[in-house]
Amino acid sequence: MDLIARLRDALPAEAILTDPDVTGAYAHDMASFCEAGTPAVVVLPRTVEQVQHVMRTATALRVPVVPQGARTGLSGAANASDGCIVLSLVKMDRIIEINPVDRIAVVEPGVVNAALSRAVNEHGLYYPPDPSSWEECSIGGNIGTASGGLCCVKYGVTAEYVLGLDVVLADGRLLTTGRRTAKGVAGYDLTRLFVGSEGSLGIVVRAVLALRPEPPQQLALAAEFPSTAAACDAVCEIMARGHAPSLLELMDRTSIRAVNAMAQMGLPDSTEALLLAAFDTPEPAADLAAVGALCEAAGATEVVPAETPAESDLLLQARRLTLTALERVKSATMIDDVCVPRSKLAAMLDGTAAIAEKYGLTIGVCAHAGDGNTHPTVCFDANDPDESRRARESFDEIMALGLELGGTITGEHGVGVLKKEWLARELGPVGLEMHRGIKAVFDPLGLLNPGKVF
Amino acid sequence: MDLIARLRDALPAEAILTDPDVTGAYAHDMASFCEAGTPAVVVLPRTVEQVQHVMRTATALRVPVVPQGARTGLSGAANASDGCIVLSLVKMDRIIEINPVDRIAVVEPGVVNAALSRAVNEHGLYYPPDPSSWEECSIGGNIGTASGGLCCVKYGVTAEYVLGLDVVLADGRLLTTGRRTAKGVAGYDLTRLFVGSEGSLGIVVRAVLALRPEPPQQLALAAEFPSTAAACDAVCEIMARGHAPSLLELMDRTSIRAVNAMAQMGLPDSTEALLLAAFDTPEPAADLAAVGALCEAAGATEVVPAETPAESDLLLQARRLTLTALERVKSATMIDDVCVPRSKLAAMLDGTAAIAEKYGLTIGVCAHAGDGNTHPTVCFDANDPDESRRARESFDEIMALGLELGGTITGEHGVGVLKKEWLARELGPVGLEMHRGIKAVFDPLGLLNPGKVF
Ligand SMILES: Cc1cc2nc3c(=O)[nH]c(=O)nc-3n(C[C@H](O)[C@H](O)[C@H](O)COP(=O)(O)OP(=O)(O)OC[C@H]3O[C@@H](n4cnc5c(N)ncnc54)[C@H](O)[C@@H]3O)c2cc1C
Ligand SMILES: Cc1cc2nc3c(=O)[nH]c(=O)nc-3n(C[C@H](O)[C@H](O)[C@H](O)COP(=O)(O)OP(=O)(O)OC[C@H]3O[C@@H](n4cnc5c(N)ncnc54)[C@H](O)[C@@H]3O)c2cc1C
Repeated sequence: MDLIARLRDALPAEAILTDPDVTGAYAHDMASFCEAGTPAVVVLPRTVEQVQHVMRTATALRVPVVPQGARTGLSGAANASDGCIVLSLVKMDRIIEINPVDRIAVVEPGVVNAALSRAVNEHGLYYPPDPSSWEECSIGGNIGTASGGLCCVKYGVTAEYVLGLDVVLADGRLLTTGRRTAKGVAGYDLTRLFVGSEGSLGIVVRAVLALRPEPPQQLALAAEFPSTAAACDAVCEIMARGHAPSLLELMDRTSIRAVNAMAQMGLPDSTEALLLAAFDTPEPAADLAAVGALCEAAGATEVVPAETPAESDLLLQARRLTLTALERVKSATMIDDVCVPRSKLAAMLDGTAAIAEKYGLTIGVCAHAGDGNTHPTVCFDANDPDESRRARESFDEIMALGLELGGTITGEHGVGVLKKEWLARELGPVGLEMHRGIKAVFDPLGLLNPGKVF
Repeated sequence: MDLIARLRDALPAEAILTDPDVTGAYAHDMASFCEAGTPAVVVLPRTVEQVQHVMRTATALRVPVVPQGARTGLSGAANASDGCIVLSLVKMDRIIEINPVDRIAVVEPGVVNAALSRAVNEHGLYYPPDPSSWEECSIGGNIGTASGGLCCVKYGVTAEYVLGLDVVLADGRLLTTGRRTAKGVAGYDLTRLFVGSEGSLGIVVRAVLALRPEPPQQLALAAEFPSTAAACDAVCEIMARGHAPSLLELMDRTSIRAVNAMAQMGLPDSTEALLLAAFDTPEPAADLAAVGALCEAAGATEVVPAETPAESDLLLQARRLTLTALERVKSATMIDDVCVPRSKLAAMLDGTAAIAEKYGLTIGVCAHAGDGNTHPTVCFDANDPDESRRARESFDEIMALGLELGGTITGEHGVGVLKKEWLARELGPVGLEMHRGIKAVFDPLGLLNPGKVF
């Protein structure tokens, strides 16, 4: 085949996978309900030049290219399309530089998030973005999705930590954006344009990331509430009073029960909502006491502060397990990612409960509550066509509710194929036209991740 | 005249200025050496619809439009071009909303930076970006230039605080970007594309800004050094040790003397470099003591911690006066804005001193040292053609040095007309091509701020 032969011109044999049994494993990410095609070939480059060769070949032959990291995405953004080149960046996984004076790291895209975190920790530094998938997901994928995590309420998302990029464009040319400096305003912010673009504008082959000094270990508390609304009131009070928690997470009853069923963690099974707050300040106990008092004032029936970082970790582990635990409730899940202004969090959660009731479904909600970012997770039986249909409909209704409350259809998981139609609604016709225009500037032939985002 | 008549169709008479004596005052911002044309008309709209009418008219008649805030810019980015419409946003100066729970403000572009700061303070909130021009400059101009300030070393620049925008496009259509939520990744980051675009992509008519809880009042220290290199060593040590100063500024000997000459502030006239550090942490005195020790270890001859916020303010006032003081050294100044990785700060300052020597010029440097952002200020006699030529040449050589050290030609003041040729160097041909492509998407007729940026 011409495509494979051309790829071989500049790539070693082991970088090119064509066995359908093998390439099939690269067909999709972790999202439900997202179509995936059959790739023509999977390429695993190790150098920038190899990536450039792949893109030049793709352009010459007009073959679509789907960039991939660790495929932990939850929107189908890394799914193969029929006949495409899957361009997996996982072998480009070197940490090139860690610089404590400039507080930056320079990395290849295949570096695993947790590997980078641990490496910078050794220099007393901290790379904050911590998606729950951090032991698997790649920095390239994090940049592709502008991904978030538990600490974002204090430290912001991936976008805030990307200073500069090397990007291979659709035609194989190399574009360098941004800087290694703390500040810089020379020209348009192309760096941020690539962050969250889900592989539709170019292939990230190198990133300059900002680091922070490592904060003290955080200390957490758990507070039980008789209703999600009361828990949301506490969230609003905590933020309005100027607290800066390093974590502020909410689990609803369904999530708590699912985690208990899976891991016997002794969470309070009977409560309606659990709020987890943590501080990595110099005096976390004092901050926790203040926040605990606000929780009680908002109606918390019990407030349990951890006394050691180990106890805190245990609490947070429950939160980190939630998605996995909800996956065991039924044969399938659809994880939503609606973000609303935090003042609308209670309305969002009450509305989601009403939608679950209306469709006769189990929908567990965990939320990055401090950011107003909810993950309503619809649990359903994929073999039951009627329940599957109701699952999809409820999922859409949840997004509609989010938009109605002044929110966005995606706080951190991205659009992919899952939310493509909804993106058009959120952007409106003028916004969509500008998106299409920008796409055409970077990828005039439409070869990069076609059929995704918009 | 057809243009004026058409503008009058939807704008009140007092919003349209045509008297050349009056419109002349709107011809340029505060940069030296930047050409400025004569506007055909100055328009001062008060509503979004009026802005839309101006842009529709401009498109219909193919008249260029120069958006303007308070014209405190230092790169000529707001300078009129011949026959243009100057579109001044200063009358759109309402603060529409301040929301402590969602920690956002919604504002019109003409709001003055300091007015917003004070208004949010009353709610216990903080809008960090604080350019030294804050009592005059507008939020629209801050967004146009992605402007910085003294607190950026801890809190980042304007870009980090812009969540969403309403923008009137060149053809008069309204585009809404971004969100009011804490997080959101729906589609490309158009918000950030507008921030720092210097009026070349659209007219910002409304902004959703992120706020922070108000920190404790900061406490500062001043440290005297026998060389700028020693002061830069201290800066590197402070940052490498994980300190988070809310301000870390450097003044060289020339700057110190200029401030003393103007304001008799009793700064140590004989010292080579003064470092100012401040902390707004819960225990600023402890942090200052630690940083003071690092300064001494790096060779500081004297370390003077302020004991009260009032004493701190006095120290900072010296820093805030620097540009104005340097303006009195000779008849004119050119203020540069090169930002280098902070590990290269000493090399940048030594190199700048060598350039001053080579050209026989006085160049005073103050720097947002913690960010590696230097403001070498060339003082020269504008009536002396040879000195003026040398001033311009030294200015260029300073930018070349910055690029050589891995820096950028502009940390916060922008490109405007002053650094247009230099931007092309920094971006390279591929970057420049992508910039042109993006410009054509938003402004296909090239009517917005023509001749600026690139
Ligand atoms: C259990 C679990 C928990 C999760 N928790 C979170 C969470 O807390 N927060 C959160 O935000 N997400 C979370 N996710 C979603 C997912 O982990 C993130 O979206 C992550 O950033 C994806 O990284 P990846 O390496 O797996 O990328 P992939 O899924 O492989 O790709 C993601 C997107 O990036 C593009 N891409 C990848 N590499 C490149 C590159 N080098 N250049 C250009 N484009 C590229 C792809 O085309 C695709 O569009 C979770 C997922 C799971 C399974
Ligand atoms: C004494 C002094 C000290 C300074 N200190 C600093 C400092 O510490 N940090 C710093 O970063 N800068 C500083 N500056 C530079 C200047 O104040 C900033 O660049 C500021 O952001 C400009 O705001 P402005 O309202 O005056 O905008 P203008 O100068 O009027 O315009 C700036 C740019 O923004 C565009 N623009 C303005 N409004 C809009 C709008 N509504 N829509 C689209 N485009 C628009 C203009 O076209 C132009 O390109 C200083 C200037 C002076 C004179």
